[in-house]
Amino acid sequence: MEISEDKIRQLIRQVITEQSDPYRVPIGVSNHHIHLSQEDFDKLYPGQKMKIKKQLKQPGEFATEQTANIIGPAGKIEHVRVLGPVRSHSQVEIARSECFGLGIDAPIRLSGHLDGTPSIKIQTPDAEISVQGVIVAKRHIHMSLEDGKRFGVKMGDVVSVQIESQDRRTTYDDVVCRPRKDFVLEMHLDTDEASAANVRDDTFGHIILPKEN
Amino acid sequence: MEISEDKIRQLIRQVITEQSDPYRVPIGVSNHHIHLSQEDFDKLYPGQKMKIKKQLKQPGEFATEQTANIIGPAGKIEHVRVLGPVRSHSQVEIARSECFGLGIDAPIRLSGHLDGTPSIKIQTPDAEISVQGVIVAKRHIHMSLEDGKRFGVKMGDVVSVQIESQDRRTTYDDVVCRPRKDFVLEMHLDTDEASAANVRDDTFGHIILPKEN
Repeated sequence: MEISEDKIRQLIRQVITEQSDPYRVPIGVSNHHIHLSQEDFDKLYPGQKMKIKKQLKQPGEFATEQTANIIGPAGKIEHVRVLGPVRSHSQVEIARSECFGLGIDAPIRLSGHLDGTPSIKIQTPDAEISVQGVIVAKRHIHMSLEDGKRFGVKMGDVVSVQIESQDRRTTYDDVVCRPRKDFVLEMHLDTDEASAANVRDDTFGHIILPKEN
Repeated sequence: MEISEDKIRQLIRQVITEQSDPYRVPIGVSNHHIHLSQEDFDKLYPGQKMKIKKQLKQPGEFATEQTANIIGPAGKIEHVRVLGPVRSHSQVEIARSECFGLGIDAPIRLSGHLDGTPSIKIQTPDAEISVQGVIVAKRHIHMSLEDGKRFGVKMGDVVSVQIESQDRRTTYDDVVCRPRKDFVLEMHLDTDEASAANVRDDTFGHIILPKEN
């Protein structure tokens, strides 16, 4: 098997990073998904309970067996997965590249920040409802309180993350830190961001703190 | 109309950049597209000529009225536009996020670098052919020879480009410079990269040269 100089460089960077980088952060890629309130879940899946398909990395979060279609003025996306547990307000997260096909100009927001966000139809074989709360996820890092102390950041602080991937090295700024007792260290990117930076299963990020003023 | 602090910051950055930045580079976003050899064009569109729909920014390049479906082992994308003029070898450029749906793991390559690239079926009402040469475009900047001199870069040099967009500021590394007599200054990003960096019509890049060794 031939191995390119670029590949060797990437491997060296990766091994060095893994062995010695205290600012290393694992990357989790979020495909489009739906969060539902109990009320909306009961409308869309009458008589059903959330059926866990897969635990996610953040404790208590899981992908369910349930999917639904989301329908905008210009088009739809089928089989969008519902994540659990239920939330106080329903919310649909899509990639920015999907806004065009749906005909919805969703703003870039942190989860739960739904003021003034557009609506979308959610459709199952049993029901079709309209939900206000379509967003494109703002880049963020889940972390424990200990991680927050270690990095010297608090909830809402903004950092940059450098991604040393092959052929598409990228630095993402505007990344919001979210330290919380029950969180596990993980940067969340959506499918656009992961593809743009050529993120693979073995790709990590490196947190860059803002320079002292 | 309310205007957020973030929006004001972005506007200030933009105006300052426009007025004073010699390293400013316009951004062109490339959707998935097809380049065809004359032979393949004649098979797919027998008796037709390329019909110009729109001139592109690079002189002599144009979008045609012709589209085709591209079909991989896992799925297809319909109505993919053919760009002109014809080339010596056919080539299909897709976004990395589209690789999954098609079932094709296309490498990240500069245009025309097709050694060992996978094949795909191209389908029109008149024909279906298999073409070897599916790539995900490597980030690059078209520029005139004068631009090349001004930046101090030659064909193949690699730079970074900082994108000061709202909510998703990003620095893309691994950007290849392509100065040529008939080129016009323009950074090409694909739809993944443009969405990941929240590139809008009024978003520009800022070229960062590698540090002197």
